[in-house]
Formats: sequence, C-alpha cells, structure tokens
Amino acid sequence: MPWISLLTDYGYEDAFVAICHGVIGRLAPDVRILDITHAVPPGNVRRGATLLAEAIPFLPDGVHVGIVDPGVGTARRPIVVETPQHLFVGPDNGLLLPAAEAAGGIRRAFRLTNSALWLHPVSATFHGRDIFAPTAAHLATGTPVDLVGPELDPQQLVRLPSPVARLHGEMIDAEISSIDRFGNVQLACGDIAGWALGQPLVVEGGGAQVPAVRATTFGAVAPGETLVYVDSAGRLAVAVHGGRADARLSVHEGDLLRIRPA
Amino acid sequence: MPWISLLTDYGYEDAFVAICHGVIGRLAPDVRILDITHAVPPGNVRRGATLLAEAIPFLPDGVHVGIVDPGVGTARRPIVVETPQHLFVGPDNGLLLPAAEAAGGIRRAFRLTNSALWLHPVSATFHGRDIFAPTAAHLATGTPVDLVGPELDPQQLVRLPSPVARLHGEMIDAEISSIDRFGNVQLACGDIAGWALGQPLVVEGGGAQVPAVRATTFGAVAPGETLVYVDSAGRLAVAVHGGRADARLSVHEGDLLRIRPA
Amino acid sequence: MPWISLLTDYGYEDAFVAICHGVIGRLAPDVRILDITHAVPPGNVRRGATLLAEAIPFLPDGVHVGIVDPGVGTARRPIVVETPQHLFVGPDNGLLLPAAEAAGGIRRAFRLTNSALWLHPVSATFHGRDIFAPTAAHLATGTPVDLVGPELDPQQLVRLPSPVARLHGEMIDAEISSIDRFGNVQLACGDIAGWALGQPLVVEGGGAQVPAVRATTFGAVAPGETLVYVDSAGRLAVAVHGGRADARLSVHEGDLLRIRPA
Repeated sequence: MPWISLLTDYGYEDAFVAICHGVIGRLAPDVRILDITHAVPPGNVRRGATLLAEAIPFLPDGVHVGIVDPGVGTARRPIVVETPQHLFVGPDNGLLLPAAEAAGGIRRAFRLTNSALWLHPVSATFHGRDIFAPTAAHLATGTPVDLVGPELDPQQLVRLPSPVARLHGEMIDAEISSIDRFGNVQLACGDIAGWALGQPLVVEGGGAQVPAVRATTFGAVAPGETLVYVDSAGRLAVAVHGGRADARLSVHEGDLLRIRPA
Repeated sequence: MPWISLLTDYGYEDAFVAICHGVIGRLAPDVRILDITHAVPPGNVRRGATLLAEAIPFLPDGVHVGIVDPGVGTARRPIVVETPQHLFVGPDNGLLLPAAEAAGGIRRAFRLTNSALWLHPVSATFHGRDIFAPTAAHLATGTPVDLVGPELDPQQLVRLPSPVARLHGEMIDAEISSIDRFGNVQLACGDIAGWALGQPLVVEGGGAQVPAVRATTFGAVAPGETLVYVDSAGRLAVAVHGGRADARLSVHEGDLLRIRPA
Repeated sequence: MPWISLLTDYGYEDAFVAICHGVIGRLAPDVRILDITHAVPPGNVRRGATLLAEAIPFLPDGVHVGIVDPGVGTARRPIVVETPQHLFVGPDNGLLLPAAEAAGGIRRAFRLTNSALWLHPVSATFHGRDIFAPTAAHLATGTPVDLVGPELDPQQLVRLPSPVARLHGEMIDAEISSIDRFGNVQLACGDIAGWALGQPLVVEGGGAQVPAVRATTFGAVAPGETLVYVDSAGRLAVAVHGGRADARLSVHEGDLLRIRPA
C-alpha cells in the first residue's frame, strides 16, 4: 500500500486534518496516511521545514504533503517537488526544500495547474482540502507527476534564508532552529569534529551566561547541569538534565546562541 | 475496508481514545479508523456538532461515532441515526443531527438497547468504550442497523436550538458558530448573495467596532487588515490577515457579531 | 495484520512520534499502529504506567511500546516483557510492569542487546527511533522474542513504589493516581464492596473539606455536587457534576486524598 504523510499547521482542535484524511480516503482508499505533526505554530514556515527535513530520512517512500501556507489563495504557487524516492506537495514558500535536500536533492519540480486532479469548487482558504490532498491522493495511486502541471526550474523555487551559524576561533554563534517538547534547544549547525571536547563551556543567550559541559546524553551529567551535545538529528544542541534549557536561557526559536570555552 | 470515524471530547492526554480504538480493533480488525478530532472542549455539544457537520461531506461512507456526552449514564438515549450513505452513533443530545442533515437527512433512527452488541460490564461513565465503539464496530462489519434496538421517530430526537442569524436591511446579526486555530471567526450563516460586495464594512462585537473589507482570502488585504469572507465551509467569517480576529474583537464562540456598512 | 501500540511522552508538536511511525512503517509495512497517547507529561513514568495499564485490557494482542525514559542513554536497560498475549518494549524503569501485570503477569523478560535489530548509528538520546521502534517492528513481524537478547529475572526488573492506599475504619486514605481531562480525580485503589454506600461523605485534600455523595455517574447528582464513584477503570474516583474535582479540591496527581463519612 502506498503512503502519504502530512505535516500542517492545522492543529488538532478543528476538523481540517480530518477533512484532508477524508479526501484522501475517498480518492485513494488503499493509501496509508502517516501524520508527521499538525502542531506547527500557525504560519511558521521555518519550523515546518525543520520538522519535515528531520522526519524524512525515516519515512517510507511516498508522497509527503506539507501545508504551512499563510499565502493561501494569493499568487504563491502550489507545487510538487520530486526527489529520488519521494514526492513533496505543498506551497512554494520554502517549506518543502530542506526536506527535499535531505532526501537526495530535487530532481524535478512542477507547478500544480491541472485542476482535473482537484476538488471543486476550489475554496480560497483551504487548498489543503481542495488542491494538495487530492493531488497527493492521485499521485499516490499512480498518476504520473508530470500530469500535475508545467515543469518549473528548481532554481526559481522560493527558499528560506539560511540560518546564522558561524564558527570563529573556539566560539560558535548559531541560530536556534527548534526547541522541542522537553525544552531542548537545537542549533542550526551540525557537530564540529572534536570541537571543545570535554572542555568546560559557557552558553550565552537571552542575556544569560550558563556554564555547561560537553556530553553525549542527559543522564551523563548531574541533575540540573547544562550540557552541550549532538542531538538525534545530528545537530548541536543544549539541554538541562531533568530540566528545560529554553527556560534556563530564556530563549526562543530563531534567537542567536553563543557557545564558547569557559 | 469499511471506515469508522470518531469525534469526541476525550482529549489526547488520557487513554480514552486509544481504548475506543482498541475495542474497535479487537471486534473489527479490518476497519479503518479516521479520527475527526478529540479536542472538542469538554461537554461542548454544539462545537462537536459544528465540526462533525463540517467534516462529513468529505469523509468516506461509513459509521461515524460522536461522543460529547455530559449526560453519560443518565436517561439520555444512546442512538443510531441513518442517512443515505452514513450511520451516526452517539448520544441523543443534538450532537449528531446537523451532520445527518448535511449528509442528506435522516432516513431512520434507532435507540441502542441490544446489549449483545456491547462490552460488559457496562460502566456508568464510559459509554464510548462499552456501548458506542462496540456497536459501531458491529455495524461497520455488517450487523444490520435495525438490530441495535427499536426504531425512533426522528422528530422526537433532541435538537440543539437554532443559532441566531438575522439579516435586517444591510445589517447582519449572527452568532459565532466556531473560532478556529488561526483565530478566524465563523458565523452561523452562509453567504448572502451580493451582500455588501466591495463595500467598506464595520464588524461590531465584544465592545469593539472594527473596520473591515469584503475579500476572498487573507492575502487579498493588507497585513493587519480585517476581512469578511466566505470560509471553506461556506459560512460568513471574519479574519485578520496575519493576525487573530477573535483577539481583535475579544469574542468567543456563541457571542453575537454584527456586520454593517461603514 | 499484527498490531503495535505506542505510548510516549514525545508530545504532538515535534516529529518524534512520526519518526517512530516511519521506522515501523519501513521495517514492517503490514503492521497497524495504535497510538495510546503521546501526551504523558515529560518524564512522568508513573503517569505513563497508569495509562498503559488502563488501556491494555482493551487493546488487540500485539507489541506495545512504552517510552517515558528520562534515563535514555545511561545504564538503564532496554527490555522486553512477555505476557500470555502481549509483548511490552521499553526502558526498565517501572513503566511497563503495571500493564504487564494487568495483562496476566510476566512470563519472561529479556534485555535488548541484539543490535542487529536496531537502527544505526544508535543515538544517545532517541532510543525510541533507534532501539525500541525497530525492535518492536521485528517482533511484530515474527522475530522470536528470545532473539532480542539475554533473559532477565523478572524479580530484578525496576518497579515503581506502590502508591499509598489505606482503609482504616470507615476512612480511606489514598494517593491520586491520575486526573483526567475532565478534572475527575482517580485514586490508587479499587472499590471497597459496600463501603459507605449511600452515606454522606467528606472528601479532604489540598486543604479543602468537600461534602460528597456516593453515586454511580455524574448526572445522578445535582449540577455542581461532588460525587464519589467507581470509574470506568474500576478505581475509586471523585468528580463534580458539570465541573472539575481537581479544581474544587486544589489537588494534583500524587497528592493524598482522604474520604470519610460526614
């Protein structure tokens, strides 16, 4: 059975997600749906892009629908992006590209214009229901991707600005790419081989200066201690054993963090 | 494979929903479950009814269980309502009827009394587990609906009071039927053809008087501007481009809103 | 199709749950996944154990993965616990045992050491993805349980301390085992046959003394009244008709409650 995964900012308290499931279920009863998350903060395209890119290496081959779409109903283009194993469906606002790159890179891209694949009438505010979900259902059941509309130059797709991430000397300045449920603070940079291994460190951000140690996991430091580690997505991150690093540092997604030797 | 959909106020932090899934999975392993939402505010029958009615046109044919049931264990009746394509299972408190009407109207209704279709012992507080989910599982796997219990006169079913919605002259007074995750405010009335098209408008509610324009989607007005539009469910609604209309107006579900020419 | 159920404290706002779904979907495409809940408060092993034990009697036979794992990456052991109908996979921190006991008792237990069943590289902080989910996928598709690693003495598994629950004379002192979405307060003890049946009662806790009556369901008392009842899990519980007992009593999970004749 083919797979469709869904990532949206639709939340769990309305019927938007269920309606997309229903649209897929009616058009493609044999497709299995995997919900990545629907709790992306409303309109936060970068957060959606980060989560989609983090999940994609572990998802079954299939069609992946991303909808964080503050420009719904305007001139922003609905697109499909093709990678070696996957198809990504959603708005052309930067949401899909980090995942496509994590999945082997863009092979082709298309603009969705073939309204024979859509639900009618097409609303101006719910393209998830009327355009993205039905197109995904058709793709998952064998409609060739080049039937969705004209091919696009991948270089012309909208990209999010690169997050800040700088190593100068023994010091790292990097943007916070995400903060998870546990308050662990993930930076927009991977590990730097051998960097500051075992050194006492200081994490600066949100006005705070917090002593930290390099470690591999939470329980490797004393309860309440701050650690700098490589998280499960391969990113540099800051955590507090048994606590919340975001609260200790008073930082939010997008803030800049500095890590330096003590 | 047959479908069962579920809408409840059970939330996501307890095991209530999973227990219903498990009951269905054990009795009807081939049934597919579609979760509409479980985040209906506790006991808010009207909100549950609105969401179920909004979702139903997009759901696969099947059995739909609605449980927002503050009267569980009392004399309120457990029922099944039959429409041309669907069966609705839940308490007789008004929750199921708007969806049944949106799905072609009630053909027959039955009171659940056939305890051979239930789980035993039947608790006094969790009819989702003991009555509604197992009955739905049996119905989805072929048990004829008239085996659930005696037929009821559809006219005798409990109905929610009709929400306020009045057009007088060029002015609309209507109750807020729901507020979605994005703060968009939906009114309990559909569009009125040609009404105030292009006019500058004023939205009054919660003590505020907010200038607004008629538009088709968020991005069609300037960021921060208020718009009156027809939402994806075909209802008149108020939104703020890039903001929350509920916050701007200080209104809640059930409040009255007035829209008039400026 | 075999079943895997999942209970975690991963929440719904990150991609952790979806990644576990993806890992299972890739290794075992025919397995059906049942999400028990992912909203266990971060690190709250007892709450996770209570929910898993409450759900298990209603779940299909299968593999059940529980992950509330503040000790991830440390010396705590990853284990499988076998009962007559089920396999439980997770950390050896007490999370799985109440469910195993509710499911007929432990037959055998194993330590997970066979890394051929895992995902590589194994991260230090996300054993759900790298150890528990893939092991569960292999078990659900027929890998014999004794291939996961060496057998353990069930007596040597980590157990949570027993919650306080005492009957002295006509008075019950018991710990609050959980508080559900509706504010209903569940005690860590079952019903005591005939106890205080019909007597006027007083519930003491959080500094409050609240008059209550014994009843079978919410609607059996007047709106706003407090009742003591046996909940759907067979536990003694306190509720307020149309209100929240946790708010009235100002109590939290783990607090002690006293119930006595008025």
